[in-house]
Amino acid sequence: MSLRNTINASVSPKGSLETLSQREVQQLRETGSGSVYALFRQCALAILNTGSHSDNAKTILEAYPDFEVKIHQQDRGIRLELLNAPADAFVDGEMIASTREMLFSALRDIVYTQSELENQRVDTETSQGLTDYVFHLLRNARTLRAGVEPKIVVCWGGHSISSEEYKYTKRAGHELGLRGMDICTGCGPGVMKGPMKGATISHAKQRILGGRYLGLTEPGIIAAEAPNPIVNELVILPDIEKRLEAFVRVGHGIIIFPGGAGTAEEFLYLLGILMHPDNAELPFPLILTGPKSAATYLQQLHAFIGDTLGEAAQKRYTLIVNDPTEVARQMAAGIKAVQQFRRERNDAFHFNWLLKIDGSFQHPFEPTHANMAGLNLTRNQPLHELAANLRRAFSGIVAGNVKAHGIRLIEEHGPYEISGDKDIMQTLDRLLQAFVEQHRMKLPGGSAYVPCYRVVT
Amino acid sequence: MSLRNTINASVSPKGSLETLSQREVQQLRETGSGSVYALFRQCALAILNTGSHSDNAKTILEAYPDFEVKIHQQDRGIRLELLNAPADAFVDGEMIASTREMLFSALRDIVYTQSELENQRVDTETSQGLTDYVFHLLRNARTLRAGVEPKIVVCWGGHSISSEEYKYTKRAGHELGLRGMDICTGCGPGVMKGPMKGATISHAKQRILGGRYLGLTEPGIIAAEAPNPIVNELVILPDIEKRLEAFVRVGHGIIIFPGGAGTAEEFLYLLGILMHPDNAELPFPLILTGPKSAATYLQQLHAFIGDTLGEAAQKRYTLIVNDPTEVARQMAAGIKAVQQFRRERNDAFHFNWLLKIDGSFQHPFEPTHANMAGLNLTRNQPLHELAANLRRAFSGIVAGNVKAHGIRLIEEHGPYEISGDKDIMQTLDRLLQAFVEQHRMKLPGGSAYVPCYRVVT
Amino acid sequence: MSLRNTINASVSPKGSLETLSQREVQQLRETGSGSVYALFRQCALAILNTGSHSDNAKTILEAYPDFEVKIHQQDRGIRLELLNAPADAFVDGEMIASTREMLFSALRDIVYTQSELENQRVDTETSQGLTDYVFHLLRNARTLRAGVEPKIVVCWGGHSISSEEYKYTKRAGHELGLRGMDICTGCGPGVMKGPMKGATISHAKQRILGGRYLGLTEPGIIAAEAPNPIVNELVILPDIEKRLEAFVRVGHGIIIFPGGAGTAEEFLYLLGILMHPDNAELPFPLILTGPKSAATYLQQLHAFIGDTLGEAAQKRYTLIVNDPTEVARQMAAGIKAVQQFRRERNDAFHFNWLLKIDGSFQHPFEPTHANMAGLNLTRNQPLHELAANLRRAFSGIVAGNVKAHGIRLIEEHGPYEISGDKDIMQTLDRLLQAFVEQHRMKLPGGSAYVPCYRVVT
Amino acid sequence: MSLRNTINASVSPKGSLETLSQREVQQLRETGSGSVYALFRQCALAILNTGSHSDNAKTILEAYPDFEVKIHQQDRGIRLELLNAPADAFVDGEMIASTREMLFSALRDIVYTQSELENQRVDTETSQGLTDYVFHLLRNARTLRAGVEPKIVVCWGGHSISSEEYKYTKRAGHELGLRGMDICTGCGPGVMKGPMKGATISHAKQRILGGRYLGLTEPGIIAAEAPNPIVNELVILPDIEKRLEAFVRVGHGIIIFPGGAGTAEEFLYLLGILMHPDNAELPFPLILTGPKSAATYLQQLHAFIGDTLGEAAQKRYTLIVNDPTEVARQMAAGIKAVQQFRRERNDAFHFNWLLKIDGSFQHPFEPTHANMAGLNLTRNQPLHELAANLRRAFSGIVAGNVKAHGIRLIEEHGPYEISGDKDIMQTLDRLLQAFVEQHRMKLPGGSAYVPCYRVVT
Repeated sequence: MSLRNTINASVSPKGSLETLSQREVQQLRETGSGSVYALFRQCALAILNTGSHSDNAKTILEAYPDFEVKIHQQDRGIRLELLNAPADAFVDGEMIASTREMLFSALRDIVYTQSELENQRVDTETSQGLTDYVFHLLRNARTLRAGVEPKIVVCWGGHSISSEEYKYTKRAGHELGLRGMDICTGCGPGVMKGPMKGATISHAKQRILGGRYLGLTEPGIIAAEAPNPIVNELVILPDIEKRLEAFVRVGHGIIIFPGGAGTAEEFLYLLGILMHPDNAELPFPLILTGPKSAATYLQQLHAFIGDTLGEAAQKRYTLIVNDPTEVARQMAAGIKAVQQFRRERNDAFHFNWLLKIDGSFQHPFEPTHANMAGLNLTRNQPLHELAANLRRAFSGIVAGNVKAHGIRLIEEHGPYEISGDKDIMQTLDRLLQAFVEQHRMKLPGGSAYVPCYRVVT
Repeated sequence: MSLRNTINASVSPKGSLETLSQREVQQLRETGSGSVYALFRQCALAILNTGSHSDNAKTILEAYPDFEVKIHQQDRGIRLELLNAPADAFVDGEMIASTREMLFSALRDIVYTQSELENQRVDTETSQGLTDYVFHLLRNARTLRAGVEPKIVVCWGGHSISSEEYKYTKRAGHELGLRGMDICTGCGPGVMKGPMKGATISHAKQRILGGRYLGLTEPGIIAAEAPNPIVNELVILPDIEKRLEAFVRVGHGIIIFPGGAGTAEEFLYLLGILMHPDNAELPFPLILTGPKSAATYLQQLHAFIGDTLGEAAQKRYTLIVNDPTEVARQMAAGIKAVQQFRRERNDAFHFNWLLKIDGSFQHPFEPTHANMAGLNLTRNQPLHELAANLRRAFSGIVAGNVKAHGIRLIEEHGPYEISGDKDIMQTLDRLLQAFVEQHRMKLPGGSAYVPCYRVVT
Repeated sequence: MSLRNTINASVSPKGSLETLSQREVQQLRETGSGSVYALFRQCALAILNTGSHSDNAKTILEAYPDFEVKIHQQDRGIRLELLNAPADAFVDGEMIASTREMLFSALRDIVYTQSELENQRVDTETSQGLTDYVFHLLRNARTLRAGVEPKIVVCWGGHSISSEEYKYTKRAGHELGLRGMDICTGCGPGVMKGPMKGATISHAKQRILGGRYLGLTEPGIIAAEAPNPIVNELVILPDIEKRLEAFVRVGHGIIIFPGGAGTAEEFLYLLGILMHPDNAELPFPLILTGPKSAATYLQQLHAFIGDTLGEAAQKRYTLIVNDPTEVARQMAAGIKAVQQFRRERNDAFHFNWLLKIDGSFQHPFEPTHANMAGLNLTRNQPLHELAANLRRAFSGIVAGNVKAHGIRLIEEHGPYEISGDKDIMQTLDRLLQAFVEQHRMKLPGGSAYVPCYRVVT
Repeated sequence: MSLRNTINASVSPKGSLETLSQREVQQLRETGSGSVYALFRQCALAILNTGSHSDNAKTILEAYPDFEVKIHQQDRGIRLELLNAPADAFVDGEMIASTREMLFSALRDIVYTQSELENQRVDTETSQGLTDYVFHLLRNARTLRAGVEPKIVVCWGGHSISSEEYKYTKRAGHELGLRGMDICTGCGPGVMKGPMKGATISHAKQRILGGRYLGLTEPGIIAAEAPNPIVNELVILPDIEKRLEAFVRVGHGIIIFPGGAGTAEEFLYLLGILMHPDNAELPFPLILTGPKSAATYLQQLHAFIGDTLGEAAQKRYTLIVNDPTEVARQMAAGIKAVQQFRRERNDAFHFNWLLKIDGSFQHPFEPTHANMAGLNLTRNQPLHELAANLRRAFSGIVAGNVKAHGIRLIEEHGPYEISGDKDIMQTLDRLLQAFVEQHRMKLPGGSAYVPCYRVVT
């Protein structure tokens, strides 16, 4: 029995385009763990939990053990019947429109993914095949709009930030919206919500009715970062790598706000791509910014990039402290250059085909002890490869600190052993230490920081 | 020479319906004090000042002495040329869309008013004639939409309120918007902005694209209370009485948030109307509300009504402390009753024809010493007449305290002498004293409160 | 009792903007001959008769003696209750949408006209005042759209033409529509319908959703020329002169198809205006055209213009026989020149302010014997004045032949005596004779043609 | 070198949603017979030939031997470059919007089909798999719209009919459109165009902006029956069987107008399906109609059905001679029943899942001598199987008469030998003889009719 307020309801898409075949409906009805239904139920629960402030996926799922969603095919199309659904998704008994929309977006994406996999349609062997898959999924979700001028700004950063940082993201979003730009985020709270909220107000001021608030997520993260209700286009990519690729292929520029270790990893992901020699000429506006109170954090991150990847990497982004208007102005100017570039190269405005993403960024890195030990963290390689390896090291360290699987590995085998140039090791250590001091890294049980790696010389 | 940042610009209506005849353009070009041009220039300057936080009309007008606006008739319609305009109305050199829209709304209303007056078309002798005039002006502004279900909530309250009170109005607006309601205010800052901002966010969540943020103002007040840029329908009524009548004829319910003496006067205006015997059966949802921090204020106002007009008056409204969700729910329920009532009586959803407004509320009250002395403030009359007289007394006291003309009268002739039932006089005194203590009444030069009236027995 | 099929129905405007004040509703309810109600009833009956093929106004009005229309003000706005209405306006008991729309257009224009007259708002003394009145009425009907590029083609010609001529107007309309142009006519059958029908098909092919089919009429003619149901903007001007002025002020070019004496009179009206020296530089595309079978007619009309007004007049239009594609091409090119001209002169695209219309074309000509005898039909005057007088002569002759009032005058006083240059008299005679032979002039009772005038030397 | 007028042009989709991946663009560029490019070129040429009156596919293809279409990926999406294209598709050098739209529809469907086949995604083994394929293709073309009430009327009949029959189809379409219905045809001339043209006019009268004119075709027939330009939704199904299934799954009712042998075959196809016992309860409005001049034809077809399949088959349709209003009324009533039925059974309005289509109707019939000889044309079987076999016999006879492949078979092996009940053979013979006499069957070279089959007892 649920201890929370729940509600039973039946919802239909409002003027939706979604139609399902009988077979698709049948598949969604087959329950069982690992089934399409289980996946959809989990995403639906996360979406319905949109008002909640918990970011603990497990908690949410366990709080509504008897939640069920049934799919019916009816005269006017699909209808969803919800049993024991979180009451917060409703206003006076009626589901909030954005929540309803997102439920049907989840349905659309999960049916599509399932159907593609079942037919072995995705070519997962080649880099081109994986990119095509991301393209097809976004096209099916009607995210790719031919003929529209570039204006999608991706905002990355933490979902759990200080009140001052949150206000800053709202102000930045407001300035971006005043300049007609749309917002794309990971679709949870914090940095993922603030810019959308700011842009909603400024789009209203500019009488922009079709402002886009694009949220890209994946099943593993949606429960922990429930889509905020301002998101008006939700896309559920099948995994983390597809989601990251979607960000950099549809975004015309990226802003990095303060965040935890995950944000830093994303930053390295993007720098690793941008430093690939094939991307040397390709314009990609990238701004690192935050309010005055985050100045130290920003400087530390900036210094870390300088120490490891050098000035070349630092030149791929601009650091702006406490000036949201300047952030928006520079982003607008940067996107103008992107538009010019794509026009000259005949690349699509709606999908960044020309960006070279190496296979190493498309396949997940498994943070085993062997893989970590094998990482090349020396200057004895091209910078973009060092960036890729740093990202992997970072990914492993994060996992060893906070992810269930990584923690277990550390418990069993002791700390990861990594080796590399001494100064690189030191600067990495300093950065993580700073994150801990600034409460940007959630440690299990609030315990003191015990490094999960050690440097072998 | 202006000390402020200014800009020169040329703007056209975006897909606007506004067209002017050559004669109308000619009239707008004829400058001179008291001219149509002077009126339009003043309103335009207020609108362009929308970002500013000053509420001192004189200051604004004096800050841009060389501001000019020229009207041109061109191939695609009207074009406005602005010289030395406040720079804050622009983003990177381009005027904010809502500001541009409002300029053309002002043009529309001023041309209409001028044309009606010039042709002696308005019948100002009869109550019916004045109501018809309000109707025609609103119709010309396309404010009256046949066939739309009732959902306009008027929010009254101060333009200069505490941060907590402001947040409360945002939360109330958010809850109203979640329930599909539109917001109508006096279109300045404070209570006039908060509910619109909240509703903008919740309308986005509910995917309501055509949410209305209706601002009603008049030339005498627009400079002091510049329309906030969320307003997407601006109407400039010719004077205070027409504006008040417009509020109660187009609003389907009214919420009174904390405010100064002006707010109290508006409250009395509405109670005076509602207590007219002809309106006894007419449903009109009216809610007095504010956050916890305003509880004392709300109780004082409530007690004042009880002391003077009695329980009958208190029954016409609901007092809700610190519960924006309940405010929205009760307003929604109240408006359902309004809809039912109008359907039964065949009254228009878009204009409250059945509301009886006595001529005494349509004509301005001139606060001279003689008029003040002549007010009947005793219980020796029907309650709705006492309400009307209290409103007049209140209006006079406010004028004597803060309005230039009133202050001068007091300086020349000493305090107003008013007489009436003793307890009525006392409770009035107590309320005003409380306003002063709560900093809700702006006193010239921040001086101590010296009553501008005395009671004669 | 009516001998025809009738139906009772109740209709509301579909999403209409029309709202009426209580006073306006009251006025419409006051019956009596000469009343606003009588006028509206007559127009409503004509509109409901849209499917019928009769062009005899009297017949129509007499066929439905017990037709009534009641105006109700209700919650959602105005509702019309129709009693004993012609059944042809309905499909399976439901009124055709275009008919419903036109009823409310008629209501709008009649209320507006009434209100303007009642308030003595129209300045009928000056040419400028009359033009302003036409402008205001069209603006109130939302016919004037700022910002839209010129593309309104007026089509003039007979309402009773041969099948081949009708098909030709459809083909011309099709070609105009393929080029994105809108159609404006007098809104009855024949030439007033064909081009609209052709353009409807080609607008569909060009995926033009907002194609305009503008019908301009007046109460005296609407009964005889019921608006065809393709008209999607109906405007009822108060009289013939306002209607003619509306045509030449909103049309960007005019095509003259075959027609009777009325068409010829309209042609002379326009040539008279265009030959005014003030209009010498003003571009105004004017095409005289028809199918092969109408070649003789076209040549005769062309010769008549040449004989009387000379080559200068002939240069103001182009004669094109049997080539609808060429007609559309030349019209498109002509309108391009109009656009260029207005841009240079800052004249509105939506209203031809720069066209000089002399007062003599704005006031009606009364065809009394004295007025006819006094006409100056000699070359002893500027050509544009001769054109004006020829139009008057023509108007008188038409009246003497077919209009009730004119026929009575002739019966009482014998034929009109007109005098003028001999060759002018002869060519006029020849043209009218040709019209009779081609069955383009309806003669009472089908009798042989007896001239209603004689030439005095 | 082409002898016809040709033009070179470059076209982009207007606000289109179509986007292609780089791989898809690449595939379209690979030329060669049997390639995707060859298929697209052929369809494109047919679409561009929309104005032409030739119905000879080979002629069209040969008339433009040097026609080429190149696909470019550009900043704003896909662009097509056309070389030596038929000039009739352009108005003053600009492509007609509907033609442009159809080009991109063809691109969409051909890319989709290719991609499905390449990935072996279609399950062609089972009836369910084939139906799913039709569903997915229509869904990808956005033909299936959830939530819309049933109103799609399929019109079948000849592409080459008499002028009187053509006018009759326009009148029927007009009546259908007046009642809000949409039209679906095979998208060529004749019966495929008339109802759309009529409905375009009546949709305009009813102010229906989103009227649908759905054209379903397939690559083998599109060249001979070029889509008429009123079609605003074109879908190219991969073959004849998919196209027929699409008609009966998306249409809510079907009207059969006069036509040749192909029309009769379609009629038998549908009757064969409707007579399947599983469909006994399923409502499917079916009307056989034509003008007075086609009365004999209609009676002959009706008699043939009665003679072979009996009264039970005749009860599945209504025969209406010369009454388009009655046709529309009965169709509207029939579709109401369909709506009711689907609501009760929870079947989709947008796709007729409940209609049982036997595999024998989904797989093509190969008209070899052995297959023809093996047909069971006796009453010794269920009626719906006799219907299926009659359709096959009919299909073979048609092929033996007019199709290249069939004629060759007859030349080589002599007439088909078919056997069956004597009366069935006779009535079949009579019907075909009547078709020949009425010029409804195109015979090669206009030769006299020599039966291509003989009855073996």
